[in-house]
Amino acid sequence: MTVNITLPHDNSYDIFIDELKDLYFDRKVVIVTNPTVSGFHLEYLKSKLKARELSICTIPDGEEYKNMETIESILAHCFTNRLDRKSLLIAFGGGVIGDMTGFASSIYQRGIDFVQIPTTLLSQVDASVGGKTGINNKFGKNLVGTFHQPIAVYIDPSMLKTLPKREFGAGVAEIVKMAVTFNKDFFEWLESHDLNDEKNIQIAIAKSVETKANVVSQDEKELGIRAALNYGHTFGHVIENETNYNTYLHGEAVSIGMCMANALAVKLGFMSKDEELRVNKLLEKYDIPTTYKIKNVEDFYEHFFLDKKSLDNKIKFILPIGIGDCKITNEITKDDVIEILKGF
Amino acid sequence: MTVNITLPHDNSYDIFIDELKDLYFDRKVVIVTNPTVSGFHLEYLKSKLKARELSICTIPDGEEYKNMETIESILAHCFTNRLDRKSLLIAFGGGVIGDMTGFASSIYQRGIDFVQIPTTLLSQVDASVGGKTGINNKFGKNLVGTFHQPIAVYIDPSMLKTLPKREFGAGVAEIVKMAVTFNKDFFEWLESHDLNDEKNIQIAIAKSVETKANVVSQDEKELGIRAALNYGHTFGHVIENETNYNTYLHGEAVSIGMCMANALAVKLGFMSKDEELRVNKLLEKYDIPTTYKIKNVEDFYEHFFLDKKSLDNKIKFILPIGIGDCKITNEITKDDVIEILKGF
Repeated sequence: MTVNITLPHDNSYDIFIDELKDLYFDRKVVIVTNPTVSGFHLEYLKSKLKARELSICTIPDGEEYKNMETIESILAHCFTNRLDRKSLLIAFGGGVIGDMTGFASSIYQRGIDFVQIPTTLLSQVDASVGGKTGINNKFGKNLVGTFHQPIAVYIDPSMLKTLPKREFGAGVAEIVKMAVTFNKDFFEWLESHDLNDEKNIQIAIAKSVETKANVVSQDEKELGIRAALNYGHTFGHVIENETNYNTYLHGEAVSIGMCMANALAVKLGFMSKDEELRVNKLLEKYDIPTTYKIKNVEDFYEHFFLDKKSLDNKIKFILPIGIGDCKITNEITKDDVIEILKGF
Repeated sequence: MTVNITLPHDNSYDIFIDELKDLYFDRKVVIVTNPTVSGFHLEYLKSKLKARELSICTIPDGEEYKNMETIESILAHCFTNRLDRKSLLIAFGGGVIGDMTGFASSIYQRGIDFVQIPTTLLSQVDASVGGKTGINNKFGKNLVGTFHQPIAVYIDPSMLKTLPKREFGAGVAEIVKMAVTFNKDFFEWLESHDLNDEKNIQIAIAKSVETKANVVSQDEKELGIRAALNYGHTFGHVIENETNYNTYLHGEAVSIGMCMANALAVKLGFMSKDEELRVNKLLEKYDIPTTYKIKNVEDFYEHFFLDKKSLDNKIKFILPIGIGDCKITNEITKDDVIEILKGF
């Protein structure tokens, strides 16, 4: 299956969802990866890949290394290997690898090409589409970065066989997100199909990628509808930040965030209690967390304002309207939010 | 005088060359500047500027601070002051301030707007046009950065009154560069006019900006003709690097680099000895250096390959063809270059 991402300014590219085919690049190539991914899959990738000159840049595994220091180590590898403006970086790993490789490629010599080969379900369905790159810092998550589109994305679902169950669930959370906000039929399909089946997961990846691609094509720089993809993220980012990014996987935090958004939507009459429970049930089917014990509700609320989605000191919430539609609003009162937070 | 820079992808903007007019921005604004510039001109700028919320980010003065650490301090200022995606950075200073403010604004929350108010002659004629942003690192100069266009540039020639004579000369070198590579009439005008005269310098700035704008409009990402603006830079960057960026001003290194390129052009028959001497004479009129004692010619040559303009291990030279035209070539033999270097 191939999904084309249509973007202005010659930024269009294809996403191939299939067993990896033979790739040839007549230029210097650096594969950016981490020890975990390379242990499982690097030999497989190398068996498929030919390049004029190939080197491997291995960075530590984990969200805690998603910072400027690691970016500088990737850049240093590129300079040491004398990459030029025609060279290529390949992001080979999960979302962290993808975001950082994308960012490094966007600032190396003012921007070179990169390719994504995402190896986790989360990065396959989410990070591989959209061109968002970035790193975390002490002020929050993904606050520094660029928009830089890959020239191609290769998704090989067979790589998911080695993915830990929790990480698989984190990816499913993003699939559920896409269905709840944009596609009721897809949500119902998810309720009746098991994503542990290899054929089903391939279909679900393609469906998610298509849905996201459609949104991103309309709004590459997130000036409007693309913000809806942050459903669950307004809350999720605070949860990740409060827990120092070491308790929940990104998709797990988003899952809890969706449940918080849903509770708010139910309170405001946008969603029925029954629909809220259906979403919970689907998430719990894959053992994805749906609750989080908030220590201090006021602190939690205050944290929103460090999130970049808050313009003019108003917090932007993405709330589902039933299942398959959503609204973006910054008109939610603090009292309503606080009440929902207290319920968690 | 106003020069419009026409670029694809909604990136066009105006350059205003005149006494600063009143500016109003209905958003959060950060002025990025250094102690030297703010000492001379900050009160003047503040008297002209209104913003919804204004703060000043002062960074150390000097090319040696043009690094990632300083970028992170600018970003930290922005986060601490809770800038959002609609906020604006103003680069208020020379080329270093412009390049770094541009870079910081291109990666803060994946890119926000910035305005240039260049205060040195060099940055007025050169860095204010083209959208190149960046920093130095141990591998070389401007090797990390982005293409990010300002939304407007305000050049107030009256600010040049406080500029040290050497820095003025460094700016004149870039003006001469523009004339030699693209405009014979302009070169002859420069030979017969004194740029210390305020009216003349305003004309020369406008002429240089127009020339560069014309080139950049044709080739924003430097895939072709824009590379000609690097006349003098291939050599100049090595000189700056060898002297740790603390001996020559950028424009001075470019001046010496142009003389080296001219000598090479004379040897290869692209330029006459008389034309070479006319360029030297014009530079020396403003006490701009035209020679440099090379310690080790082989080392100097080897240094070229760390420069990002060298694709496929070939060095790209920009050589004048007489005065007012030039060629970009990577077909110069090592022997020819070495012979020229030995003459310096």
